[in-house]
Amino acid sequence: MVLTIFGSVAFDTIGTPTKILKNVLGGAATFASISASFFVKPGLIAVIGKDFPKEYHKILSKRLDLKGLAIKDGKTFRYSGVYDKTLSSRRTLRTDLNVLRSFKPTVPDSYRKSEFVYLANNDPDQNSALIKEFDNVKFSMCDTIDFWISTKRSSVIRMFKQVDAVVINDEEARLLTKEFNLIKCAKKIMSWGTKYVVIKKGEHGSLLFFEDLIFSSPAVSLENVVDPTGAGDSFAGAMMGYLTSKKKTDLTSIKKSVAFGNVMGSFAVEGYGTEGLLRVKKPDIKKRMSQYEKMISF
Amino acid sequence: MVLTIFGSVAFDTIGTPTKILKNVLGGAATFASISASFFVKPGLIAVIGKDFPKEYHKILSKRLDLKGLAIKDGKTFRYSGVYDKTLSSRRTLRTDLNVLRSFKPTVPDSYRKSEFVYLANNDPDQNSALIKEFDNVKFSMCDTIDFWISTKRSSVIRMFKQVDAVVINDEEARLLTKEFNLIKCAKKIMSWGTKYVVIKKGEHGSLLFFEDLIFSSPAVSLENVVDPTGAGDSFAGAMMGYLTSKKKTDLTSIKKSVAFGNVMGSFAVEGYGTEGLLRVKKPDIKKRMSQYEKMISF
Repeated sequence: MVLTIFGSVAFDTIGTPTKILKNVLGGAATFASISASFFVKPGLIAVIGKDFPKEYHKILSKRLDLKGLAIKDGKTFRYSGVYDKTLSSRRTLRTDLNVLRSFKPTVPDSYRKSEFVYLANNDPDQNSALIKEFDNVKFSMCDTIDFWISTKRSSVIRMFKQVDAVVINDEEARLLTKEFNLIKCAKKIMSWGTKYVVIKKGEHGSLLFFEDLIFSSPAVSLENVVDPTGAGDSFAGAMMGYLTSKKKTDLTSIKKSVAFGNVMGSFAVEGYGTEGLLRVKKPDIKKRMSQYEKMISF
Repeated sequence: MVLTIFGSVAFDTIGTPTKILKNVLGGAATFASISASFFVKPGLIAVIGKDFPKEYHKILSKRLDLKGLAIKDGKTFRYSGVYDKTLSSRRTLRTDLNVLRSFKPTVPDSYRKSEFVYLANNDPDQNSALIKEFDNVKFSMCDTIDFWISTKRSSVIRMFKQVDAVVINDEEARLLTKEFNLIKCAKKIMSWGTKYVVIKKGEHGSLLFFEDLIFSSPAVSLENVVDPTGAGDSFAGAMMGYLTSKKKTDLTSIKKSVAFGNVMGSFAVEGYGTEGLLRVKKPDIKKRMSQYEKMISF
């Protein structure tokens, strides 16, 4: 396995202005790994319950290596949230951890040599422990969310020291660093020991920081956004998938991976749940990347 | 005169988190024309009162042709506003029109042949009347603000039909078109008869629309922003100044003018009032443009 992704697989119940989705396939690792699967075949470390339907399992098994997917007695993790009418903010209604509560992730032997590892927004202590089980990591990246920042801030910072790159939302970067300006946020995160910081700004794109360098990339402008769920995870998954496929970790490649992140994130938001990603064909990616390059060059 | 700029010259009283400015030189046309003056010498159509200090007059006369600047009995237009602590939103405290109330702008003979005309956020009927006084316009652009959209919406739309390009804030574009998605906003504005639409997104950059094309450009990322006043006007002024200096109005040149807009806007927000712009030297622009190009290319 060259790329391993660790994170949640979930049943999502999402209110959007145009449709209510009930118990659809979701979760950070689901979006990240499906997105990455257009570049390489990633291995997934996650847990599901016995209620996980065959149909969803098939979606994953077609694209991913599932030796790291544990199936436990009990129900799959459930998330429920609702978007405002502009799709700019989402309110969490309910989180049922279910099988996730007692999950002890382990790295299958065939994953231990992974050179690329993506740790989605898991418990930061769990992420920190898991990354140590890999023998040969060339490039690791993690995400986090406000819940962990608010409840386990020092664990989040400890986790950041152990990865090469952090990908984080603007608001979460502000919450974590207690800075408002995003350059100041990134500098503080880098001062804790992470080499690369990617701050995601939703529809406004992202900022990549490395030493004194800033790479600013707008999102792909879209006329029809229906469900932003999983956009950030798809962004991160595309970054990891692209880098793994090239076996590169230099700055130019990381910039390019961010561009692919914008492209894959744009597919994700055009469909409900994972639909936007699942209907993508490889030529669509090439075509949109070429449109994106035109969109941002002068 | 190759470029004429029509708009307000004001005394600004601005509360920022770090400094309170009292009766400093401000106004949309002030920022736009100073910004444009790094590319060409623009002519200014505006009005000031007898209270306008020599010191401010000198700032303008050094950079601009002032045949179109009327000096009237009474006080100069005054604006007062206060920023929130993150500098993301400004609340207007007070507007005293003073000499602006009864101002009847006229175009000096030497300005009538201007090929480039920028109409800042004036009364839309006044802008519509004024543009007709030019004989030889190659490229005209206008701005507007929420006040005119709320009080004279159909005049704003009529004004838009008469210019080549509209530059407008995201929130104002939404208010005007009653659409949320910015592509939909721009399409509606173009359907009214304007060829180019530039939607400004503040710290997130801007979107340029022309037919089916979108050009998305991030703002220059800055660590120290002290006062966003005049950033949008400086952006528009740089666009007009650059295009005038090149005597070009093709799409590639307009894209490049937007990039210069981002660069000049970035200088504006680094200083209080007009200070940020006034301390710029031409080599600074070249240097920052080169940094900006690096910042956005992959």
